[in-house]
Amino acid sequence: MVGQAYDTKNSISATNPTKKVGLSPDSIINLDQGDPTIFESYWRKMGDKCTTKISGTDCMSYFSDVGNLCWFLEPQLSDAIKGLHRTVCNAVTEDRYMVVGTGSTQLFQAALYALSSPSGNESISVVCAAPYYSSYKEETEFLQSGLYKWAGDASAFDKDGPYIEVVTSPNNPDGAIREAVVNREEGKLIHDLAYYWPQYTPITCPADYDIMLFTFSKSTGHAGSRIGWALVKDKVVARKMTKFIEVSSIGVSKESQLRAAKILGVLIENCKHFGTADSNSFFGYSQGLMTKRWEKLRDVVKNSQIFSLPKYPKEWCNFTGKYTESHPGFAWLKCKEETDFEILLRSQKILTRGGERFGVGRQYVRISLLSQEEAFNLFLERLSAIKGQGIISDENPL
Amino acid sequence: MVGQAYDTKNSISATNPTKKVGLSPDSIINLDQGDPTIFESYWRKMGDKCTTKISGTDCMSYFSDVGNLCWFLEPQLSDAIKGLHRTVCNAVTEDRYMVVGTGSTQLFQAALYALSSPSGNESISVVCAAPYYSSYKEETEFLQSGLYKWAGDASAFDKDGPYIEVVTSPNNPDGAIREAVVNREEGKLIHDLAYYWPQYTPITCPADYDIMLFTFSKSTGHAGSRIGWALVKDKVVARKMTKFIEVSSIGVSKESQLRAAKILGVLIENCKHFGTADSNSFFGYSQGLMTKRWEKLRDVVKNSQIFSLPKYPKEWCNFTGKYTESHPGFAWLKCKEETDFEILLRSQKILTRGGERFGVGRQYVRISLLSQEEAFNLFLERLSAIKGQGIISDENPL
Repeated sequence: MVGQAYDTKNSISATNPTKKVGLSPDSIINLDQGDPTIFESYWRKMGDKCTTKISGTDCMSYFSDVGNLCWFLEPQLSDAIKGLHRTVCNAVTEDRYMVVGTGSTQLFQAALYALSSPSGNESISVVCAAPYYSSYKEETEFLQSGLYKWAGDASAFDKDGPYIEVVTSPNNPDGAIREAVVNREEGKLIHDLAYYWPQYTPITCPADYDIMLFTFSKSTGHAGSRIGWALVKDKVVARKMTKFIEVSSIGVSKESQLRAAKILGVLIENCKHFGTADSNSFFGYSQGLMTKRWEKLRDVVKNSQIFSLPKYPKEWCNFTGKYTESHPGFAWLKCKEETDFEILLRSQKILTRGGERFGVGRQYVRISLLSQEEAFNLFLERLSAIKGQGIISDENPL
Repeated sequence: MVGQAYDTKNSISATNPTKKVGLSPDSIINLDQGDPTIFESYWRKMGDKCTTKISGTDCMSYFSDVGNLCWFLEPQLSDAIKGLHRTVCNAVTEDRYMVVGTGSTQLFQAALYALSSPSGNESISVVCAAPYYSSYKEETEFLQSGLYKWAGDASAFDKDGPYIEVVTSPNNPDGAIREAVVNREEGKLIHDLAYYWPQYTPITCPADYDIMLFTFSKSTGHAGSRIGWALVKDKVVARKMTKFIEVSSIGVSKESQLRAAKILGVLIENCKHFGTADSNSFFGYSQGLMTKRWEKLRDVVKNSQIFSLPKYPKEWCNFTGKYTESHPGFAWLKCKEETDFEILLRSQKILTRGGERFGVGRQYVRISLLSQEEAFNLFLERLSAIKGQGIISDENPL
C-alpha cells in the first residue's frame, strides 16, 4: 500500500502529520497511499479518554491467552472487536474464530497460506476482479511462493481446479459493492471488508462469509498501530492462519492490541451515548467529513469537462437508519483525454497511483481522500486548474 | 519459536504470567519456548518510570520518518537503540542503516529476501551449523519460496555457488560463541545476536558484521512487544529489508516502538546511575538472576549421573569489567542414556524441545531458563527425581 515511500521524502506533510511544515505552492502532495490522518481531529476532541497507559511489566510474555486458538490475541481486544461489530451490525461474529494480525496485510497473506495446500502438485491461483487492490498482487508474488500464484483479473479467469478469489467490498480502488465473480465449486473466498464501515458506505446487512478481514487503520484511522483482524468460520483455516502469524512474527504487538481495545471501547461508548448519526459519535463525525470531501470533489469534477467519477446508489443504512450513498476513502478518477493520468497529475505535484497497478488502463488514478485537510484542499485547487489538452505537457515531470 | 502453543493450553502459568494460577504437582511446566518472563521483577522495581502513555492521536499515520530509508522507524527508538549499543559496547552502530521489525523473526525473513535474487535461476541455499535454532528452518521453508531454500547444517554444506549462512552467537540452543563455518567467497552472512547481552555472555568486543539482528525480547525481556532491529552495512540490502517489511506488514507497531524507546531509556539511565555491575542496573540484576539459576541447575546435573551440560570458558567482559562466564537463556541438556530425552522429560510433565528440531540427536533437549521462578524451581525438583534407567517408562506419557 505504501509503495515507494522513501522515494517521496520530499513530499512532506500530506502523509506525515508528525512533521508539520505547512504546505506551499511548491509542495508535493502525496495521495498515493491511503494514510487515514483525516480522522485525527475526532480523536483529539476525545482528549484523555483515549489515552492508553502501559506499565513496564505489562504484556512481557509472548502469550496473551493460552486457552484460545489464537494464543497471541489479547482477550480485551477480542471483546472490543465483537462489541464494535455488534454496535455497527456490519459482520456476524457468533461462532467465528478471531485471528489478530499485524494489519490486515499480514492476515491476507495468512489466509493465502491457510487456503493453499503444502502437498499440492501445483500452486493455487489467486484472483480478484479488476480494478483490484494493487498490493494483493505484490503480496502474493514477492516471495515467489510455491503454494500460491497471482492469476490476475477474476473476470478473465478460466482455469479449472481450485482457486482463491479475493472479494473486496467496498472495493479498493473504486468503492463498488462487490460479490464473487468466478463462482465455481473449487473456489475459496477471502472477503476484504476493510472499508465496510458507516463513514464509507451504507451498512446494508451483517456480512457473513467464510473469511472476513478488517483493519483498525480504516475503521478508526489508526494506521500506525498495524492491527487487523480476521473472522473465520472454519477452525482448521483459523488454526493455519494463526500458525502463519506465529512463524512470520511470533504474534502481534500487545501494546497495539491494548490501545486498539481502549480506543474501540471509547468509540462504542460514544455510539451509545450520542446516537449513531450524531456528530459526536465517531461514525457520525467521520461520515460528515467524508460527505463534505466528496461534495467538494464532485463539484470540481463537474466543472472540469475532462474528469469523471463513479456514481454510487443510495441504500438504506441499518446503522444510521437513513438512506445514504457511499463516500469511499479513495477517489477513482478517470481522465477522458488520452493520457497517462498519473504522470499528468505528477506534473502538477500530486502523487497518485495509476490504473495499471490495479489491472486496468492508464486513464485511471486512485487518489486518497483520507489525507489531512490542508493537503486535500490544495489537491482540489490544483485539480481545478487542469483544463484539458493545453495543460498536458511532458515538460518538467517531477 | 513458540511451536504449537495452542496445544499446550493445559500447561498454564509457566509461560503465562497474566494468568497466575499457581503450580501444583500435576502442573505441566512449559519450557519449550524462551518466554523471558524472568526479568519481570526488575521492571516491577522500576515502577512508574517505565510507564508509557499514548494519547488517542499519537502515531496515527503509517509514517514515522519519511526522510529515513526505514520510513516506519520511530526516531526516538532509533536513538534509544544507538544509546543502548553505545552503553553496552556490543555492536558498532556508526555508518549503519537501522531497520526495525516485528521481532527479529520478521527481520530474519527480511534478510533472506534481501540477500536472494528474484531473477536468479536457482533459489539460494540457507545454512546454519548444527545445532541450529529450529525456527530458521521453519521460517525458510514454510512458504516454499523460490528465492531461498533451507540446506541444513552449515558444517556439511558443500554445494558451489552463492549461499546464506546464519551465524548465531551466542548460539541458540547451546550458548556457544560462534563464527562462520563455510567461509567461501560467494557466501552472505546474517549474524543473529539476540543473546549478545551481558546477562547471558561476556561482551568481548563490539560486533561488526554486515547484517546484525537484535531483539527487545531477549535484551530486556519484553517479548510481547514484538520489536527487533537490524544493523545493516549495505544500503541496498537495508532498502530491500525495508521493502520486505512494507509488503508483509506495512511497517511495525508504533506503540511498541514508543514503549521500547521509553524502557530502553530507563535502562540506559540506570546503567549510568548505578554502574554496570550494580544489582540496580538492569544488566547487573539480570546477570545475577542468570548466574543463580545456572548454579542451581549445574548442582542438579552434577548429582544426576545421567545428564550433562556444555561448559563455557571465562572471558573478560568489557561491560562489567570482570572475567565472567556465559549463562545462556537456554540449557542444552544431554542425557547419557539411550533415550528420546524430550519424551522422557514430557513423562515428568516438563515440556522442552528435542534435539532433532535443532538438526542433532534425540539425546539432547533445549530447556528455557527464562521462565518465572516458581516454574524454574519445580523443573529442578522434577529433574532431580530422574535417576537413570528405572525412571524411563513409556507409561502415561502426556
